[in-house]
Amino acid sequence: MRHICIHVDGFGNIGRAFTRLLLSKSSLLDALDIRVCGVYDSTGGIYKPDGIDAQRIEELLKLPRSSLGSVGSKALNVAETWRAGDIIVEATPSIYDESHPINKRFIELIYSGAVIVTANKAPLALRPDLIVSYGLPSAGQRLYLSATVMAGTPLVWLAYGLAGRRVKRLIGVLNATTNYILTLVEEGYSMKEAIRRAQEEGIAEPDPSIDIEGYDPAAKLAILSTILGYPRSINDVARTPLTAIPEEEVRSPGEDVRVKYIAYLDPEKAYVRPEKIGTSLAAARVAWNMNAVTIEVEDYMIEVTGPGGGPSPTAGALLSDLINAARHRERAV
Amino acid sequence: MRHICIHVDGFGNIGRAFTRLLLSKSSLLDALDIRVCGVYDSTGGIYKPDGIDAQRIEELLKLPRSSLGSVGSKALNVAETWRAGDIIVEATPSIYDESHPINKRFIELIYSGAVIVTANKAPLALRPDLIVSYGLPSAGQRLYLSATVMAGTPLVWLAYGLAGRRVKRLIGVLNATTNYILTLVEEGYSMKEAIRRAQEEGIAEPDPSIDIEGYDPAAKLAILSTILGYPRSINDVARTPLTAIPEEEVRSPGEDVRVKYIAYLDPEKAYVRPEKIGTSLAAARVAWNMNAVTIEVEDYMIEVTGPGGGPSPTAGALLSDLINAARHRERAV
Repeated sequence: MRHICIHVDGFGNIGRAFTRLLLSKSSLLDALDIRVCGVYDSTGGIYKPDGIDAQRIEELLKLPRSSLGSVGSKALNVAETWRAGDIIVEATPSIYDESHPINKRFIELIYSGAVIVTANKAPLALRPDLIVSYGLPSAGQRLYLSATVMAGTPLVWLAYGLAGRRVKRLIGVLNATTNYILTLVEEGYSMKEAIRRAQEEGIAEPDPSIDIEGYDPAAKLAILSTILGYPRSINDVARTPLTAIPEEEVRSPGEDVRVKYIAYLDPEKAYVRPEKIGTSLAAARVAWNMNAVTIEVEDYMIEVTGPGGGPSPTAGALLSDLINAARHRERAV
Repeated sequence: MRHICIHVDGFGNIGRAFTRLLLSKSSLLDALDIRVCGVYDSTGGIYKPDGIDAQRIEELLKLPRSSLGSVGSKALNVAETWRAGDIIVEATPSIYDESHPINKRFIELIYSGAVIVTANKAPLALRPDLIVSYGLPSAGQRLYLSATVMAGTPLVWLAYGLAGRRVKRLIGVLNATTNYILTLVEEGYSMKEAIRRAQEEGIAEPDPSIDIEGYDPAAKLAILSTILGYPRSINDVARTPLTAIPEEEVRSPGEDVRVKYIAYLDPEKAYVRPEKIGTSLAAARVAWNMNAVTIEVEDYMIEVTGPGGGPSPTAGALLSDLINAARHRERAV
C-alpha cells in the first residue's frame, strides 16, 4: 500500500504547532507510513508526492507568515494536489460566511471524497449536515473534528460515546477568551481594559468580535449539538454579547454564583450569553483560559474540564484525529 | 440488508437495565433495523432469528433471576446462535480467571469474528492484546468496551480521542464501592461498619473482595492504560487493599488533602491503593459513588467526572456502544 500523504492546509500558529508536534512523533509516523506531502498558506504551497523531508519542513517552520508562495509554488492549494487516500489537515481560519472561498473549498473537498481532519469550525457550524453525513463514527467517516471544540480536550469523542442516549442539557464555558476577560474583570479591570489586556497578551484577536459577540462559542455549541443528536447551525444558536453584562455583576455576583459566558443547549433551544450560574456547575469553577462543560444525560451528570485554547492543545487534537483517520484507512483498504 | 440481531448475554441487573433502555428507544431501533434476537443467562436462553417481540421481552424482564432455561431452551448459549453481522452484548459477570468458561467463550467469540459490546471487564483486563487488535477505532473494530470503565461516562471514547499523544500520567477514582465506603468512614463509621452498610445498601457485593482488594479498579486501569498506549493486564497493576489505610487517616487526612482509593498510571508503572491526594485533583473532590480522573497529556490537564457505577449508567454505555457498532456495520456492508 502507498504511504499516507498528509496535506497541512494553513500554516499559521495552529498549522505550525501541529507540524512541529508531528515531526516529534517520527516513530509513530513511520509505523503508520504517514508523510507530510503538502504544506500550504494563503500565498501558495509546497507539494512533494513522496513526502517533504524533515529538514525542509524545519526550514519552512522558520519562515515568516504568508511566505510559502515565495519559496514554493505561488497560489498552489490543496484542492489541486490531494488524491484519494490522502488526509487533509485543515488549519485554516474560521470565517462564518458560507460563500467565503475557504469554506466553499472545504465543502467541495468533502463532496469529492476527501478525508479531512479540521480545526476550522466554520464549515461545520454553517453546515451541520456535513457532520451528520461524514463526521460521526462509522466505516464511512471522513471528517474528524475534535480540534474544533475545547481545543485539546476530546469532548467530541466523549460526545460520540453518548450516541443514542438522551442528552437533556449541556451547560458550559466553551470560549477561552471571554473567560479570560471575565477573570480579569473579577480581578478589578474594567471590561474595556480587560479586553485590551487580553489583546496585548495575544489571547484575544486584534478584532475581538468573534469571541466577544459569541460567534466562536456559538459555532462550537452548534457542532456539539449536532453530534449529540440535535443538528443545529450557528444560526440556530442565540447570541448575546459579553458586554451585555454589567461589570459590577461580574465582580459581585452574589453567594455561590459566578458570571460566566455560558453555552447552553437542550432539545428545544441553544444560546450563548453572559449568565450567573451556581458554583455546583463545573463551568462556574474554571478561570482564565480553561473550559468546562456539564452534560445531563438520561438520569446522570458528566463533567469535563480542560484547556480551551492555544496552539499546543489544538495541535494535539489534530494529531489524535489524524492517527485515528489513518488507522481507519489502514484497515479499511 | 438483513436486520441487525442483538444477543443479550447475561440477564442480571445490567442485562435487564440495558434491555429495558433498549425497549424505550424503539424509533432508534427501527431506524437502524435492530432487533433483540437472543437473551441468555447461566441456565439457558431464548433465540428467535427474526427478533423476539417486545411483549415477550417485557415478560422475560419480570422473571426471577436465572430462570431463562425454564421458559426457553435449557443451556442454550450465544456461542451456538450468533451469526456474522449480529452484535453480542456481554452483560456477564467479570471473573478474573482466564480459564473461566465465560472468559474462554468471550475470547473464542472474538477470534471467530464476532462483534461484541461488553460490560464484562475480565477478558479485556486479562488479555490487553484483544483491545489492541479489536477494541480501538478502525474500520476493523469489533470490540466496544466503554461500559467497562466509569460506567456511563464515555471516558473510553475520550481516551480514543487522545491517540498518538503522550499521556504522562492518569490519576483518579475508578471504583464506586470503595469511594462510598471511604465517604462513610469520613462520616464516622468504622471501616468494618462502612463495608457492612455498603453491602446492606446493595453498593458492595456479598463478597466485597473484588472491590476492597482492588481487582475492579485494577481491571479498569489496565483497560484504560492499554487504550492510552501502554498495554497492561490486570496482573501488571500493583494492588494494595482499601483496608491498608488507618481509619484515622481517612477522617483526619490534614489540610487540603483527602484519602481516596486511587488508580494511577504513567508510562513506567500502574497501581491502585488508598492514598492521600491534594484537593486540586478531581479525584479528591468526588464522594459516594462518583468517579473522577485527571489526565496529564502533553503539556495540559484534562478532568472528567461522572457516575461510577449502577445499572442505569452502565446500560447507557452499552446502548451507545451498540448504536456506534451498528452504524459502523451499516455503512461498512
